[in-house]
Amino acid sequence: MLIVKKFGGTSVADKERIFNVARRCIEDYQKGNDIVVVLSAMGKYTDELITMAKDINEIPPKREMDMLFTIGEQMSVALMAMAMNKLGVPAISLNAFQVAMHTTSVYGNARIKRIDSERIRHELEHRKIVIVTGFQGVNKYDDYTTLGRGGSDTTAVALAAALNADACEIYTDVDGVYTADPRKVPTARKLDVVTYDEMLELATLGAGVLHNRSVELAKKFGVQLVVRSSLNTTEGTVVKEGSKMEKMLVSGVAGDSDTARIAIIGLKDEPGVAFKLFNSLAKHNINKDMILQSVGRHGTKDISFTTNEDSADEAAKIISENFSEYESLDVNKEVAKVSIVGAGMQTNAGVAAKMFEALYDENINIRMISTSEIRVTVLINEKNLERAMNAIHEKFNLGDN
Amino acid sequence: MLIVKKFGGTSVADKERIFNVARRCIEDYQKGNDIVVVLSAMGKYTDELITMAKDINEIPPKREMDMLFTIGEQMSVALMAMAMNKLGVPAISLNAFQVAMHTTSVYGNARIKRIDSERIRHELEHRKIVIVTGFQGVNKYDDYTTLGRGGSDTTAVALAAALNADACEIYTDVDGVYTADPRKVPTARKLDVVTYDEMLELATLGAGVLHNRSVELAKKFGVQLVVRSSLNTTEGTVVKEGSKMEKMLVSGVAGDSDTARIAIIGLKDEPGVAFKLFNSLAKHNINKDMILQSVGRHGTKDISFTTNEDSADEAAKIISENFSEYESLDVNKEVAKVSIVGAGMQTNAGVAAKMFEALYDENINIRMISTSEIRVTVLINEKNLERAMNAIHEKFNLGDN
Repeated sequence: MLIVKKFGGTSVADKERIFNVARRCIEDYQKGNDIVVVLSAMGKYTDELITMAKDINEIPPKREMDMLFTIGEQMSVALMAMAMNKLGVPAISLNAFQVAMHTTSVYGNARIKRIDSERIRHELEHRKIVIVTGFQGVNKYDDYTTLGRGGSDTTAVALAAALNADACEIYTDVDGVYTADPRKVPTARKLDVVTYDEMLELATLGAGVLHNRSVELAKKFGVQLVVRSSLNTTEGTVVKEGSKMEKMLVSGVAGDSDTARIAIIGLKDEPGVAFKLFNSLAKHNINKDMILQSVGRHGTKDISFTTNEDSADEAAKIISENFSEYESLDVNKEVAKVSIVGAGMQTNAGVAAKMFEALYDENINIRMISTSEIRVTVLINEKNLERAMNAIHEKFNLGDN
Repeated sequence: MLIVKKFGGTSVADKERIFNVARRCIEDYQKGNDIVVVLSAMGKYTDELITMAKDINEIPPKREMDMLFTIGEQMSVALMAMAMNKLGVPAISLNAFQVAMHTTSVYGNARIKRIDSERIRHELEHRKIVIVTGFQGVNKYDDYTTLGRGGSDTTAVALAAALNADACEIYTDVDGVYTADPRKVPTARKLDVVTYDEMLELATLGAGVLHNRSVELAKKFGVQLVVRSSLNTTEGTVVKEGSKMEKMLVSGVAGDSDTARIAIIGLKDEPGVAFKLFNSLAKHNINKDMILQSVGRHGTKDISFTTNEDSADEAAKIISENFSEYESLDVNKEVAKVSIVGAGMQTNAGVAAKMFEALYDENINIRMISTSEIRVTVLINEKNLERAMNAIHEKFNLGDN
């Protein structure tokens, strides 16, 4: 078997953990498997590099930022190879140039285009454990690029696809994907299987243990993933294409309190207002999430949308500077999103109603609603978030096996 | 003009010094020059990486050690590019893959074979300051190599040769090359010019401010070097091929107290003894320096040699384990070497005699003598080192302009 294993920064944060990872990999290697390991930078090292850069230049050129970032993963892979060597197993570390990990040109947010698997195959044939730098690539100018936050997951999936691996294991600090955050919902249960689409919705909702793009890539190339803990040997959660039979009505509840609602009251009711509004926000890279438009009084309309808390004040500033013809602008950070996700939803009516009923039973007011084919999200007061999650979790019996 | 400038680790040890270097480079850039900057790792970062590696594996694989080492220079160049950008000047950092700095295969001690100057020229044409990682290269396997201690000097000279640069400036923490170490000889004077050969002898004697191999390379390709301070704007010392006229009788006095003498008394006087002795030392990478062989009593011979203090005990151990047929073995660490160097020596008799006279005047006993075409070295008691250096310095009137 050819197995790709990805370990995050926490798993390689110090000497002890590096050896722990090395031993786990060697265990599978000694069973006769070929092992490719993808690593992130140690612990919070990427954050340290950002601090170092910002001390020199508050807005460092992105090309140079990526040049600096890539040393984090290179440190991890070199030290891991030394650890495996110490344990008597031949191992070799490879960076993005050596792999050759070709990406698009965009610094800080590149996408993998192509991987030359020749070098990796050569080393595997010599029975070496191959340790690859996650997160980084090389663009057509021969410059380093990085894949964005959590990009090491994407590296692992792309390698698994390129090498036609038999398994792709994503090691993390939780046991797998849960029906809800166990810290908020005590009855939350680990799922054995989720579909790619469910995982994608969960990732988008901030409840995901996997990088969004890695799941998209896994779905595209049919790479079956296992999410499992690097701290114990518990069976994790398999992420794969779901058959009709397997599709759960609701597979999980996700909450996100990093949400702010911005309401613009009394906008002129004429064509192009929404376009102009969201276009100017997009220009400043403000993410908008739920959007609600309603007819106001006297030929005006009201537009509300949600964004993350950090962007809320900047969004309000942009609106007040670019638009004058509205009555009032309101920013509310005391709100939260709660969502249910399930691949079975698209063929089952009444799921949303059941969720609303759970909230009504708890006397929790719904302020906005947004839906996708396999997801229902509502905006509520932040203080009600945990109560809402527990109520919905119970209503759908998600804690039962 | 195309100028290659090399700055060592001390010159880029912190934010303030990085900006200091950036401003110096920008000054020459703004006069219309093309600037290529070569940097070492920041401060003692290379030592930190060694500590990090040894904590994982006392004998880390050299290939992985080089993989780890290279991140030091990559950090320096990325931060420098950010600093120059902050000062409003376009700059780009390049590592060994990007430059392409081709070396031999030997990890930890590679030699530069070839540099593809295309990428650097392209960036210079776009009026960018190009910042290159010193010390590192890439071998035919597409693996990182390093050039050995002080290798960044070599990188700078190799780049100056490949780019046919008009000047190659090596910035250091001293003002240039002195007639003697100013801390030991108060009347020591900075030299305006030294020849490549003099610089080579000085480097070998531990008095050099330049990496040995960099001087060899400069001599081979006729790259004129300037050694100058990164802390002030004093004119430095030019290192170049000397004309007959310029050759000084004696250009400097060097002392080295990191010396031990090992004497093996009463070895059998038969062929192959010296070969076997030094061959077994070479196998353990013990550097020998001065060698003296003399005829002993009753058909035996004595061999003495010097090595650095750190290697002395290991050398004695190797000898006692591999040879039994000698009378006694003596290790003396209380010795020092003092040398005079001068390109004019080869055409002037009496230089050595004058040096010996200076020592005789001071009643300093000479224990061993070794000479090259442009150098005379004697071994004396360590406690007499400074007195000897000053006496010789004065005898040759080196303090006079």
